[in-house]
Amino acid sequence: MSEKAVNGLCSQGKVLTLDTMNPNVRRVEYAVRGPLVQRALQLEKELKEGAKKPFTEVIKANIGDAQAMGQKPITFFRQVLALCSYPDLMENDNFPEDTKIRARRVLQACGGQSIGAYSASQGIECIRQDVARYIEKRDGGVPSNPDNIYLSTGASDAIVTILKLLVGGEGRTRTGVMISIPQYPLYSAALADLGAVQINYYLDEDNCWSLDVKELRRAVNEARQHCIPRCLCIINPGNPTGQVQSRQCIEDVIRFAKEEHLFLMADEVYQDNVYKDNKFHSFKKVLFEMGPEYSSTVELASFHSTSKCYMGECGFRGGYMEVINLDPEVKAQLTKLVSVRLCSPICGQVLMDLVVNPPQPDEPSHTSFMKERKLVLSNLAEKAKLTEEIFNTVPGITCNPVQGAMYTFPRITLPQKAIDKAKEEKVEPDMFYCMRLLEEEGICLVPGSGFGQKNGTFHFRMTILPPIEKLKAVLQRISDFHVRFTKEFS
Amino acid sequence: MSEKAVNGLCSQGKVLTLDTMNPNVRRVEYAVRGPLVQRALQLEKELKEGAKKPFTEVIKANIGDAQAMGQKPITFFRQVLALCSYPDLMENDNFPEDTKIRARRVLQACGGQSIGAYSASQGIECIRQDVARYIEKRDGGVPSNPDNIYLSTGASDAIVTILKLLVGGEGRTRTGVMISIPQYPLYSAALADLGAVQINYYLDEDNCWSLDVKELRRAVNEARQHCIPRCLCIINPGNPTGQVQSRQCIEDVIRFAKEEHLFLMADEVYQDNVYKDNKFHSFKKVLFEMGPEYSSTVELASFHSTSKCYMGECGFRGGYMEVINLDPEVKAQLTKLVSVRLCSPICGQVLMDLVVNPPQPDEPSHTSFMKERKLVLSNLAEKAKLTEEIFNTVPGITCNPVQGAMYTFPRITLPQKAIDKAKEEKVEPDMFYCMRLLEEEGICLVPGSGFGQKNGTFHFRMTILPPIEKLKAVLQRISDFHVRFTKEFS
Repeated sequence: MSEKAVNGLCSQGKVLTLDTMNPNVRRVEYAVRGPLVQRALQLEKELKEGAKKPFTEVIKANIGDAQAMGQKPITFFRQVLALCSYPDLMENDNFPEDTKIRARRVLQACGGQSIGAYSASQGIECIRQDVARYIEKRDGGVPSNPDNIYLSTGASDAIVTILKLLVGGEGRTRTGVMISIPQYPLYSAALADLGAVQINYYLDEDNCWSLDVKELRRAVNEARQHCIPRCLCIINPGNPTGQVQSRQCIEDVIRFAKEEHLFLMADEVYQDNVYKDNKFHSFKKVLFEMGPEYSSTVELASFHSTSKCYMGECGFRGGYMEVINLDPEVKAQLTKLVSVRLCSPICGQVLMDLVVNPPQPDEPSHTSFMKERKLVLSNLAEKAKLTEEIFNTVPGITCNPVQGAMYTFPRITLPQKAIDKAKEEKVEPDMFYCMRLLEEEGICLVPGSGFGQKNGTFHFRMTILPPIEKLKAVLQRISDFHVRFTKEFS
Repeated sequence: MSEKAVNGLCSQGKVLTLDTMNPNVRRVEYAVRGPLVQRALQLEKELKEGAKKPFTEVIKANIGDAQAMGQKPITFFRQVLALCSYPDLMENDNFPEDTKIRARRVLQACGGQSIGAYSASQGIECIRQDVARYIEKRDGGVPSNPDNIYLSTGASDAIVTILKLLVGGEGRTRTGVMISIPQYPLYSAALADLGAVQINYYLDEDNCWSLDVKELRRAVNEARQHCIPRCLCIINPGNPTGQVQSRQCIEDVIRFAKEEHLFLMADEVYQDNVYKDNKFHSFKKVLFEMGPEYSSTVELASFHSTSKCYMGECGFRGGYMEVINLDPEVKAQLTKLVSVRLCSPICGQVLMDLVVNPPQPDEPSHTSFMKERKLVLSNLAEKAKLTEEIFNTVPGITCNPVQGAMYTFPRITLPQKAIDKAKEEKVEPDMFYCMRLLEEEGICLVPGSGFGQKNGTFHFRMTILPPIEKLKAVLQRISDFHVRFTKEFS
């Protein structure tokens, strides 16, 4: 705390000021909900109050919030949730029998047979069993132990929890955590908050944002000069970059982690969001296929969520993590740590259960479930293709294919005059660009600087979530804006 | 990090071990879900598998989990939640009109009209407005600003968030936070996790666990030798001690906080759990009644939750906090910090809305709502009385009246031989006592040492939540056990 802050004690100003508050929290940045979003909300209010704008609605393509963009929830999921919330509905004939069976099973596992009771801190046991079975099936039979599953409040919660276990040290012994650049800013925010050292490794934009182990090695070697690298975070499929890692690449990463003695964190929340000929490989599966030398040593935590994929159930804050090769004493510490928050929301746990244990072919909800699921995923695949195609027709926008996840992260060429103007206004050039887009077109994106990018390059992240016709219009308006903007500043 | 840990990098053991993990996390303790609960779960499993025990079920009186103890959820709440989960039910004639109106209003405030969308990080705006109106009404018209309301994932989440803003410094400039002893161990756990200094002030057991400002002054003066006290936490009604603070006491505490330049945190999650002639006074109300000298300067955060009171909806993880006199720049930092976790669970937000905006006298659900609410609260009042009466008949157990909340924290006299035996087994004497009680009677309590107590005194915390007839039996069995235990070790 600064001298000024300590003296502040006598002057009877506020106890808590920018100067006296936790400096780690001050350092936290979170672009996905930053000043652009604040302005977008304000514009929405102004429109509602009758203000005239060059647009009639604000389109929030800044955040992966599928249902806010009109995606319909899966009927089966919501029926089971309604039954769990209000079990008198078990008498209602309009609910298919399998929804009732699921609801009854979960309720029987709840204290007092109510989703209003706390669960065990690690999550409801039968749900953890279902998660383990799901993982086994997904990974072609690689065993999964329900004791290694922790249900969480979305994936963010679990990610922060594991990072919290890993941090420590001071000065040159501080824990370093490797994250991709571009990254999802939860990681940088959590590392700032926890006082850990962020170690950047750059994805290769020229090769579809692929990950090169040479770059990992460069990053870790440089970092060893000033911290102790202990963890490597991977997001696959990538956010914001939309790449899907090949099996070979994952194997290389695992080998690297073992060599460099790093704890692996695999953020796999987009595991069902894989388009065209790409295929998702889980880190867990590849790890086990590499044989006991790896599968019995490399420490891995992998994360999933109810918020993405075909579900898009962000508001329920459901998720899980699986921990592999965790030291049993550390695992006890992890269980203790999560117990302080008592448990994750039961509705989110129930939803996670339905995701990992969806209707089976012989169950009444199967047909409609499969139809709804397929519709969402095929729409996303189409939107991924559309986005790449349209953007790549615009001079000054270059866009890698969206192989997975639900974002595009195109590179934009900005005229030097625009860069100078941004500097004058003390904002990042791509923030300047996105703010202009928002004011002129009502489209809210996130500037690339919020995710990190190579110096001198500029990007934005846009979700591909708007309905197809709207997405087409949005892509066209961004393209037109880009041309206009480039002209204005050249 | 220790020398050994750094060297560990070469030996290729685990990355994450007790020795290398975050030392702050290691220091965290959380007795409410500690080894006793682990053993209780194990005993339940053994019973299920047919093992013979001196009891037929394990009674978990360790945690304030009302619905797990058989309390029925409020019908109105659950009907609205079912409608929000599955809006097709709007067509169902069995749902009263007011449940549909509430559900429609919330859904209209959600992105895509779905509770599956993220909300603003601070919470859904119309719900924050309802919370502000509730507070105004509760506090006799003292104004409340929805901008000062943050919806949270239970109260624990919001409490940790505020503590996180407050911590900082190193060595003698570390932030000190005053907490009552006995305390609810979320506080000590969060302070350990955040690396802050815990400053203990003792409640006066001989005066119904009341709070004496002289004791606060002693504690803060001693603490100033080795840290910077910046925050005072109050739990009212008290957990685990069940006292309800008088208006005068709250005024004294506020005056003390102002004099000593402390940020006030008022944990008021039991605000409806007040029995007999006691009355709940909110810190906010008293603060504003003390005039502008106080109401415009003292920084206060107060916390509420859906988990306690007559609702007992723990599993939904709903809550809110109101912040008063927060520096606007710090408030912006707070908003940024909560945005990293995106938002609190929407079902919990909806439930919080229903709690602060229950059915009105002219609405169809009013009669049943009031009946259900009254039943829970009058039962709790009766159980509070019963608990005090029965325990105080037992030689060696003394028990203050349960004025509020849902726990009793009786003092137990332990024979010296039992204390010696516990020392031999390297456990706290009251842990030894509670473990014996669990093994012999299947009743799970939390030892007083988990909450803190004056040296040489012993207690346990028990919830008063079991249904009345079962509670009577539990009280009798604990009493018999106490007599037996005392005899065995004397």
